[in-house]
Formats: sequence, C-alpha cells, structure tokens
Amino acid sequence: MVSVGSISAEIDRHRDAVEEALEEFVQQRLAGSEAPAMRLAGDILLAGGKRYRPVISILAYEAAGGVDTSEVMNLALAGEIIHTATLVHDDIYDQSKVRRGKPTLHTSSGLPHAIIAGDYLFALGFGLGGRHEDQVVERVAQACGRIATGELQQLEHIGNLATTPEDYYSIVDGKTAFPFASVCWGAAVLAKAPEETVSALELFGMEFGRAFQMVDDLLDLTGEPSMGKPRGTDVHDGKMTLPLIHALTMLHGVEREQLADVLQNFSNERWEELTELLNAAESFDYVTQLIENHVERAMDALESIPRTKARDLMVDLVRISQSRRD
Amino acid sequence: MVSVGSISAEIDRHRDAVEEALEEFVQQRLAGSEAPAMRLAGDILLAGGKRYRPVISILAYEAAGGVDTSEVMNLALAGEIIHTATLVHDDIYDQSKVRRGKPTLHTSSGLPHAIIAGDYLFALGFGLGGRHEDQVVERVAQACGRIATGELQQLEHIGNLATTPEDYYSIVDGKTAFPFASVCWGAAVLAKAPEETVSALELFGMEFGRAFQMVDDLLDLTGEPSMGKPRGTDVHDGKMTLPLIHALTMLHGVEREQLADVLQNFSNERWEELTELLNAAESFDYVTQLIENHVERAMDALESIPRTKARDLMVDLVRISQSRRD
Repeated sequence: MVSVGSISAEIDRHRDAVEEALEEFVQQRLAGSEAPAMRLAGDILLAGGKRYRPVISILAYEAAGGVDTSEVMNLALAGEIIHTATLVHDDIYDQSKVRRGKPTLHTSSGLPHAIIAGDYLFALGFGLGGRHEDQVVERVAQACGRIATGELQQLEHIGNLATTPEDYYSIVDGKTAFPFASVCWGAAVLAKAPEETVSALELFGMEFGRAFQMVDDLLDLTGEPSMGKPRGTDVHDGKMTLPLIHALTMLHGVEREQLADVLQNFSNERWEELTELLNAAESFDYVTQLIENHVERAMDALESIPRTKARDLMVDLVRISQSRRD
Repeated sequence: MVSVGSISAEIDRHRDAVEEALEEFVQQRLAGSEAPAMRLAGDILLAGGKRYRPVISILAYEAAGGVDTSEVMNLALAGEIIHTATLVHDDIYDQSKVRRGKPTLHTSSGLPHAIIAGDYLFALGFGLGGRHEDQVVERVAQACGRIATGELQQLEHIGNLATTPEDYYSIVDGKTAFPFASVCWGAAVLAKAPEETVSALELFGMEFGRAFQMVDDLLDLTGEPSMGKPRGTDVHDGKMTLPLIHALTMLHGVEREQLADVLQNFSNERWEELTELLNAAESFDYVTQLIENHVERAMDALESIPRTKARDLMVDLVRISQSRRD
C-alpha cells in the first residue's frame, strides 16, 4: 500500500495532465475564429473542477493496458467538456448563482449567452469525441442522449413526494452513471483491451458513477457550507434525492406529514427540522450503506482485471471520492 | 428545361424521403430508453420545416456522383436536427411564441424542458453526423462551433446601430452559410468526388447559404403575415439585418435620426414609417441585388461540375428558395 501522500501525488499528476491539455485546447480556440465563443466558455471550463471524469478515463485506459495516454486524451476531455456544458445549462434552470466559486454564466452574462456557451461546449465535446472510432463516437452521443433523458426525468419528479427509488436510479444512471461508464468503456476500447476487460471497466464506471452521484446528493444535505458547496440546493429546487425518498417511505403518521410539509415549504430556517427527520428515519445511514455497496461492486469489477498501478489508483480515487467533503 | 410542376415534384420526392427518414428516426427513439426526451423533441422535429438543408445535401451528393443516397442520409438528417436544436434554443432567448405553426417548446413546456430538448437534439444530430468518417465528423462539430460563434456575435450587436456589413456577413456565415457549405462539402466527400467537385459544392453551399439567410432577413421586413411567418420579429428583437444596416448608412440628417428612433423605439404602429425609410434608402433593392449576386455565384460554382439531373434540381431549389414568401 502506498502512502496517502504519494497516492495523492500520483492522482494529482493525472489531474495536472488533464488541466494542461484543457488549457492548451482553450488557448488554441482563443486564437482562432471561435474566439468570441471561447472567451465566454473558457473561464468556466478552466475554473477548476475536480476532473473526476477525465482522470478516471485515463486511469481506465492505463488499467486496460493502454500505453500512450495521448490516445485517450480526446475522449477524456470530451467527457469533461460535455459535463461542463450540462452544468452551464443546469445552472440556468436551477437558477444557481455560483459554480466552482464564480458567478454562473447566466448570472454574469445573461440567459442567451449561457445557452449558447453550453451549446458551444457540447459542440467542442462532440468534436473531440468524434475523433475516435465509430463505436466510441456513437457511445458519446448515446451518453448525451441519456443525460438529457435523465435530466428530463428529474424535472418530471420535481416536488413529487411519490418518487420511487427506481425513479431515482433511472435519473442517476442517465445523468451520471452511464456517462461515467461510457468514458471507462471507451477508454478500454481505445486501449484495445479484451472484451472482458472492456465490460469490467464499463461496470466499474457504472457503479462508481452511482456512488459518486449519491455522495453528491448526500453532501447537499450534510455538507458544511464552509467547504464551498452551498447546502440544501436540491431541497430548495424540489429535487427528490434518495435520502428524502427513503425518509418519506420510512416515516409514518405525524413525522411523515411533518417531512412532507418541510419539503413542500422549505426554507433555511427548517434545516434542523429536516436533519432530525432524516436522522429519525436513519436515511443518512441507509444511503451511506448503499454508497458502500456500489463502491464494493465497483471494486469487484476492478478485481477481475490484472492488478496494475493504474488499477490501484482507481481504487484510491474511488475512496477519495467517497470521503470527499465538497 | 423541365416544367415547374415536375421540378416541384422531383424536389418534393427528395423532401418526402427526408421526412420519411426523420419519421422513422423519431419512432425508433420513442420506443427506446430515450422516449421521454424524444416525446418532447419529436414534435418540433416533425412539425414540417421546409428541409432545405437535408434536401440540398442529398442533391449535392447526387450531383457529386454519389449513387446510394442512404450513404448521405445520416449527414442530411444531422444537418436538419442540429438546425432544429438551434431553433429551439434561439426561440428561448428571442422569446418567440410560435414556430412552424405551433407554440414554441419553452412556451408549451417551460424553459428547462426547452433547454434540455435542444441539448438532446444536438446529441442526436452529432450521433448521426458521427457515423461518418473523421473529417466529416470534425466538420459537423466545427459547423456547430461556428453557429454558436455567429449567434454570439449577433447577440453582441443587438440594438447596435453601428453594426457594419462585415459584422453582418460574419454572423450570417457562422449561423447559416458555413452550415450550408458543410452539408454540401460533406455530401461530396461521402460521394468520393474529386477535390475540385468537393470545393465547388462547398462554395455553392456557402453562397446559397448567404442568399438564403438574406432572403429570410428580407422577408422579416417585407413578408405578408398571412404567409405564416410573423413580420418584424428581427426589428422587435433589435437584430441588425442588412437592410437596416444599409439604410442607416445611406440616410442622412433628419431621415437618419428618424430611422434610429424607429429602430430604438419600435412598435407595430411604426411599421409604415420604417418601410418608407427603407424604401427611401433603396435598401430593399440593394439587398435584393446582393441576394442575386450570391445566387449567381452559387450557380457559377455549380457550372464547374458536370451537368446532371441533380445539378439542375439544385439550380431549381435555389431559385425556389430565392422567391419564397415564407
């Protein structure tokens, strides 16, 4: 087992490579005919996301036996850029004011600019993804279709207290798990890995993606505002995340009615009330256990491929992501 | 020369083939996991656009010597679907209420749904465009980047009476001419045409696209509301189209001041005043002449490739488009 310091350094090295490639990609376009669009979209792209998607994609490529990471970089960047495109558009209809520590694009530049900047980022992502073989290109497009479908299902369930765990999984799989699975799958395909390795890494991505989104949803309820992520935005937006769905199922009588009332008439003053109800329903424990289950399944999927340094780093990244605070 | 009836029938046959392929494409997705997204996006896609982009792409493929039109259909549909995606998003920030005779998506389903539906259409278009060879895929992505850039430039010039003809051309080239050029270029590449033919068809698309957009902009000022297209929306939106730019340059003194006032404080009551000023500046004649110039250049480009039935139909389609009323 490597020490935490060196784990972190290894992962940071991959993150830096992504950052550098993104920076170069942006600079190239700032010098060309797309400069007006890139001036708008470049800031948010370089505003320092945590780059889980591209890093996991590069590690999956290495774990699948790939040797020249420049082969997977376009796919890795495509995943990050398309993710950023969805963030820009999400922020519009979630009416979010801050993203990655900066004012959201629609706040600083207005709705039309934010819509177009997102569209431009989609085009950039597709352009990069499109530099690969047909099956990878199709998978990128398919993942985008699934993201849109997941987002729509999420909208349909806004404020709907009857949302089921199945609905939740369908949303998470579309928005997050399938995209994670797609960049891992694509990385393995680009590494020309055998079919079993491709499937194992795809499954890994799916399970890691589910765990990743559930941690996100949990942090929305438990995160410390001081860590940079505003707390409770999902509740304000009426998004039915798993802790809420679980508590609505487990509580009965007066408590169930109180929870429904809190969710339907939420304000920051009712934060403690909500937390107490979720604790009473043991919803935090339940979701924490489910996250661990998905992480375990992700680890099991990795077990089926040969042990390499990259595979070890994937394990570490999953654990880092699981215990993240923002 | 064929009779107008049979020209129209030949072009209609191509349009019907596009319509049928689009219909099948939508139906397939209504049956799969993307059904929620396609239920939202399918209506606008099948709401009967005039399909200039896909039809010209198929004709360009045939004129370039292609024999199996199924080879170009994905590119042709990609062009139409991406165009529809931009319309859905444009309608949001132009605050348009009606499109293709139906309520716009954001009017009927709300802003979030319209943003996501547009994103989904982009993903579909890229997925189709992505089924082609690398250079075509890259060109599709590049065209989307140019569309975004053109839209942004248009936004930057909203209400700006100092907008120059160069600004106007830069906007039109990004939004319309380059996408037209791209589907013609791509069609010729797919037909494995020689380099000169590819370049000739690309140039044709560029010039046709310019003429096409200028007709659109002219119709906004001269169209009869009874033809289905609401009149004056560009003026209401503050979009600086070429007739306005020309008139602002040609008029002086009191008339120039009056025109500036009309544009800055436009209402439907000032319609006649605006028309008189544009007539005084001979702006309609000027733009009509420019359209004819671009059409002539498009025709010249076609002259350099062998005469075929498809080439004749392209000539006819350009003329039909030039004299369209809506």
